[in-house]
Amino acid sequence: MSEVVQKALLGKEASIRMAKLTTRQKNDALRAMADALVRENASIIAANQEDLARGQQNGIGESLLDRLALDEKRIQGIAEGLLQIIGLPDPVGDVLDQFERPNGLVVRKVSVPLGLIGIIYEARPNVTVDAAGLCLKSGNAVLLRGGSDALSSNIRIVEVLKAALATTVVPPEALQLITSSDRASVDEMLKLNGLLDVVIPRGGRMLIQTVVANATVPVIETGAGVCHTYLDETADPTIALNIAVNAKVQRPSVCNSMETLLLHEEFAEAYLPGIAETFRTLGVQLRGCPASIRIAGPMEEATDEDYATEYNDYILNVRIVESLDEALEHIRRFGTQHSECIVTEHPERAERFLQEVDAAAVYHNASTRFTDGFEFGYGAEIGISTQKLHARGPMGLPALTSTKFLVYGSGQIRG
Amino acid sequence: MSEVVQKALLGKEASIRMAKLTTRQKNDALRAMADALVRENASIIAANQEDLARGQQNGIGESLLDRLALDEKRIQGIAEGLLQIIGLPDPVGDVLDQFERPNGLVVRKVSVPLGLIGIIYEARPNVTVDAAGLCLKSGNAVLLRGGSDALSSNIRIVEVLKAALATTVVPPEALQLITSSDRASVDEMLKLNGLLDVVIPRGGRMLIQTVVANATVPVIETGAGVCHTYLDETADPTIALNIAVNAKVQRPSVCNSMETLLLHEEFAEAYLPGIAETFRTLGVQLRGCPASIRIAGPMEEATDEDYATEYNDYILNVRIVESLDEALEHIRRFGTQHSECIVTEHPERAERFLQEVDAAAVYHNASTRFTDGFEFGYGAEIGISTQKLHARGPMGLPALTSTKFLVYGSGQIRG
Repeated sequence: MSEVVQKALLGKEASIRMAKLTTRQKNDALRAMADALVRENASIIAANQEDLARGQQNGIGESLLDRLALDEKRIQGIAEGLLQIIGLPDPVGDVLDQFERPNGLVVRKVSVPLGLIGIIYEARPNVTVDAAGLCLKSGNAVLLRGGSDALSSNIRIVEVLKAALATTVVPPEALQLITSSDRASVDEMLKLNGLLDVVIPRGGRMLIQTVVANATVPVIETGAGVCHTYLDETADPTIALNIAVNAKVQRPSVCNSMETLLLHEEFAEAYLPGIAETFRTLGVQLRGCPASIRIAGPMEEATDEDYATEYNDYILNVRIVESLDEALEHIRRFGTQHSECIVTEHPERAERFLQEVDAAAVYHNASTRFTDGFEFGYGAEIGISTQKLHARGPMGLPALTSTKFLVYGSGQIRG
Repeated sequence: MSEVVQKALLGKEASIRMAKLTTRQKNDALRAMADALVRENASIIAANQEDLARGQQNGIGESLLDRLALDEKRIQGIAEGLLQIIGLPDPVGDVLDQFERPNGLVVRKVSVPLGLIGIIYEARPNVTVDAAGLCLKSGNAVLLRGGSDALSSNIRIVEVLKAALATTVVPPEALQLITSSDRASVDEMLKLNGLLDVVIPRGGRMLIQTVVANATVPVIETGAGVCHTYLDETADPTIALNIAVNAKVQRPSVCNSMETLLLHEEFAEAYLPGIAETFRTLGVQLRGCPASIRIAGPMEEATDEDYATEYNDYILNVRIVESLDEALEHIRRFGTQHSECIVTEHPERAERFLQEVDAAAVYHNASTRFTDGFEFGYGAEIGISTQKLHARGPMGLPALTSTKFLVYGSGQIRG
């Protein structure tokens, strides 16, 4: 039996016990996990040093090394994340609907855990802890498969968390980590129908596409964001500039940042020169349509491929459109249904944009950077769903549950 | 461009207009569709005769021929199904959540159509109409791929429905039927990421497995049901017999009928002989565990393969267990998480069964045959989901919607 199947079986078995835990029991376990991380931080940092050294040898790049690195302060922050989950409402056991049928049957729809959740992610060891905490609070077992760059860190973190669980009533088997760095272990996870109830990929577009293309278990897609901001002809110029700058540069590496700025031609004539100047000053490389270049001076010409690219970087496409219709058409063609924004002082145009754009979150006069579980007040999130089934947008604890109908009878049969 | 891609593009384009329709406009279209079916029933019956003649030539069997056959009365019934959808609440535009954040952002979560829904089904032309009606009411476009045995019927039905839509504001392009009988057209549908928002297979286990194994678009699994009824030692013998008989023979061909009867050994000693006698009288072939054979006389010995089979027929497995635990274990191993029942007069055991069994619907003292949209009072259903994501159990109109966050700002940016 492979490592993947063996650990999935252990996790699935544990998921039965997980579903019966009380909120108190789960919260006690979260506290024990947080305490253990802080107490054992030296050994976690030592394991992390191994990953960092290997990463440097392999030349994985500065930004990846930064995501990978753990120190006392970061571990403290990760542990605090677990403590915050304690404060979130338990999503299991809610009565979502209840009714009595004319024949006397009482039907109650309740929220239940999904069971065993698979999470496939890249080189961020904090995801190991976040995912473990969120799955625990939602009564699920979890099968983790992190990036090989973070393997030593993940192994040590999971050892620490399982040892903490062993001091509680939560079964340590509910937390499983695949340690094989082989790509085959990912492929195997994706076909575990009957064992894995869902797989959630967290990472770049390549990872997500691999999972979507190969999984036979249900998938929740997360992440890919080619987000637009459209500056209508009636946009307030100050609001427009602030929002465009914030959406691009406040944190370019994340999925809800802007990749393409769309401007109505009349607004562009008056304000694009200043906006382009600001972006250039901020170190953003611009790629424009011919009309933008005419108005705002030399830049690389944007191609269709550029419009479809999630740069996650200090690069921005600029395109001038003749109408709201043309902006909507561009978003339909190149958007990834993540987050889209219109800046306008015209309420009807705003409402049309909000109704017609097909995306997880659509904004009027606010930055797309707000698409986030914390910013929406939902607490920690397991990711941002860009699909339409099950959960869309920031996914908190309720996204990790399913439902069940409990039906109470007194001998009813169907006529 | 293939037929599948061409029709999917037309459907996707139409889905944008569908999302904007008012309830009144959709209901007017449903009425026009129902009227047209009744008015044009002669031509539909003529097309159906072609299918029936071809089916007889191909020797497709009596029960399939019966499912396929249309007459004036059946068409009347199908049209009435459309009129019933008029009475169901419009699932689009509901405000599911609304809150204001400390920074003044107003976030509103609303229900929206899924977009373009693919439905792959077998030889029941009524599904063509039901699916068209449910997708229309939920503001979706639909791409239908029915069984080749019903092709002539489906072509004529869709012609009639599209002609009816052409007299309304609903775009006829929202209803698309694949007419190629080639298996390749199914495979093509399953990979239409970016065009198809979901595919729902309706049919036998083979069809569903093919879809799950090959689809890269999101799938909602429906249907497969290996359902159990467990007669506890404290079961009321009359209730137990009535429920067991109803669950097996009231309509054996459907997914919520019983395939295996589990009995506590003490209950079995006293009552299995009578229960087995009743089933034999009703023409049900029994397959039993050794203990059942000892108590209830000669029957074929049930194998693990039998326990895993959805017979959809007058065949029943009988197995005696020593405890509730053993019953739960059997259901975990062989159940398909559809519908499960315990018959008991012991409230705590009932509650334990309801909590621990992982299935869409779990019953205490009532027949599993009630797992059905109409029986739950949800109106017409598009199928019964046996998966845990998005929708579980009978799927009515809300299962054909997604959600969207509308965010109203006044220039907010993220700090």
